[in-house]
Amino acid sequence: MLAHEKFPERSKTANGLLRYTDREVVAVLDRDHAGERVAAHLRDTQDAPIVADFAAARAAADGPIDELVIGIAPIGGGFDESWRPDVRAAIEAGCDVAAGLHYFLNDDEEFAALAAEHGTELRDVRRPHDDLTVASGTADEVRADVVATVGTDCSVGKMTTTMELAAAADRAGLDARVIPTGQTGILIEGWGNPVDRVVSDFTAGSVEEMIRDVGDDHDLLLVEGQGSIVHPAYSAVTCGLLHGAMPDGLVLCHAAGRERIHGYEDTPLPPIPEYVDLYESLAAPVHETTVVGGALNTRAVDDDERAREAVEAFGADLGAPATDPLRFGADDLLDAVLEGVQ
Amino acid sequence: MLAHEKFPERSKTANGLLRYTDREVVAVLDRDHAGERVAAHLRDTQDAPIVADFAAARAAADGPIDELVIGIAPIGGGFDESWRPDVRAAIEAGCDVAAGLHYFLNDDEEFAALAAEHGTELRDVRRPHDDLTVASGTADEVRADVVATVGTDCSVGKMTTTMELAAAADRAGLDARVIPTGQTGILIEGWGNPVDRVVSDFTAGSVEEMIRDVGDDHDLLLVEGQGSIVHPAYSAVTCGLLHGAMPDGLVLCHAAGRERIHGYEDTPLPPIPEYVDLYESLAAPVHETTVVGGALNTRAVDDDERAREAVEAFGADLGAPATDPLRFGADDLLDAVLEGVQ
Repeated sequence: MLAHEKFPERSKTANGLLRYTDREVVAVLDRDHAGERVAAHLRDTQDAPIVADFAAARAAADGPIDELVIGIAPIGGGFDESWRPDVRAAIEAGCDVAAGLHYFLNDDEEFAALAAEHGTELRDVRRPHDDLTVASGTADEVRADVVATVGTDCSVGKMTTTMELAAAADRAGLDARVIPTGQTGILIEGWGNPVDRVVSDFTAGSVEEMIRDVGDDHDLLLVEGQGSIVHPAYSAVTCGLLHGAMPDGLVLCHAAGRERIHGYEDTPLPPIPEYVDLYESLAAPVHETTVVGGALNTRAVDDDERAREAVEAFGADLGAPATDPLRFGADDLLDAVLEGVQ
Repeated sequence: MLAHEKFPERSKTANGLLRYTDREVVAVLDRDHAGERVAAHLRDTQDAPIVADFAAARAAADGPIDELVIGIAPIGGGFDESWRPDVRAAIEAGCDVAAGLHYFLNDDEEFAALAAEHGTELRDVRRPHDDLTVASGTADEVRADVVATVGTDCSVGKMTTTMELAAAADRAGLDARVIPTGQTGILIEGWGNPVDRVVSDFTAGSVEEMIRDVGDDHDLLLVEGQGSIVHPAYSAVTCGLLHGAMPDGLVLCHAAGRERIHGYEDTPLPPIPEYVDLYESLAAPVHETTVVGGALNTRAVDDDERAREAVEAFGADLGAPATDPLRFGADDLLDAVLEGVQ
């Protein structure tokens, strides 16, 4: 997993994969932390050595490496030329390379030629497939209950909450499936539409397509949310997801202490009850839904007791059960969600 | 203007251009109505002969023809092969060809080769430019007041209302400019971003870019709206426009008698006051705005007196002045809009 100079604070994709993939991560590439281990930086994830380059990853691995995953995404989604030697080395070693960048590996002449020569695959998970179309407003016709995570902002824990709810459903013996909508979710699950990267007219259609494809084969679908309905740049994606997924219930995700939209410091977050009203009233004309639970990311709170207080205050604002799924587990939240959508 | 088999009921783009372009339309191509005239079908537009093919258009024209415009857009935005002989003939006659289809003329091998050979231009107005990016939340920093049309559904008159307000502003001696966001608006104005065709993450950014580009050079910007905030398929575009444009006032457009979302017959339109609440409460966290006027399309109402009654009832529901800009003029609506944004 390539995360040069960004691990662990700015390697959201790598961290998500380390936590949720069922494949073995043999090494993380970060030249700034070479010689250390993942476990020294992250809790509740796979451990792995951190190495300086792809050659060192091969040396650290017991057997052959299947795939190099680009586990970081700079603002704008470009390809950093300092990564080129590692990508080249991976292809030459017969590895596939997966990335969720706006820059497509398949459009890079050197990588495309090298991959053809070595018979390896370049997986650009953020390239939408060609058959997307407009929504037909029929996601509510599938057999499964549909629950979507929504957020007060970007990077508040929507993907994490989705994955923790899926794990809780698995423990409870439920047949649940994640509907992945972003690069990390798609890399973890091995399928999905990159909803933030499709033609804007197809935003709702791109999530509806996934729900219709698998919704009759499961009891519960957990839709990975994106952005926030009040985000100055990304609200279009959030709104398309809300109307395209036609969820039976919503789980509102928030980060303790977040007061302003990240990167848009003159946009304060509205009060939590206003989010509940906005999401519910906006969804209702297409498909009635309610906020059935909340997930509070309390990473910024050191003390467990104060984290519990923050979670309780958040739940009171929501009018629904809340937790921090990473800190306190997601089993109770899953119960509340299941009850809420009945 | 090519409108084969669709004029005038299903030729929204051709009709919009006939009404608002300042260029001369020398002929409309519709093999089903050849020999008739535009004036027999449409009021308040340019008149022009209707002819069977491009050769007949040349015969009908006084001088050379500059451009063939594809004035219809089938569902899905495909290219109908029955149009090929006319497009071919136009290019061979030295004409540019403009289209707002999802299918790009520049990607058609025959047309591209022919255009290169004859030195003519193929203008795909629905192809977004390559430098679009995410919104920075700064459209409110321009000098101009920004007013956006929004709708209860698709095809209720947002583009028409925008153009009629621009004409009224022109009559009033105001320096106003239209921000075109859809194919018809872009073809009329000669510039613009096709907001429904951009990468979903760039929806808000694509309208913000236009506002920042021209907003310091005018007193009033009139943003052409798209879709509806409760549309099962297109709400993402509407939401991105609302947050990206950061409008100071909204004009809500509606069609008299419309009770269900067109094409989504199991989705009834919510009551008008609910639209006002939704648009205003969704906009507020990014930029406060209010519905300052309404435009009711009363085409379905035969009688002028009953049309006036419908307009008054709509205005009462809105809590703002309303009119049918085509039937009763837009001067009073412009006054209300200007007062509303002060």
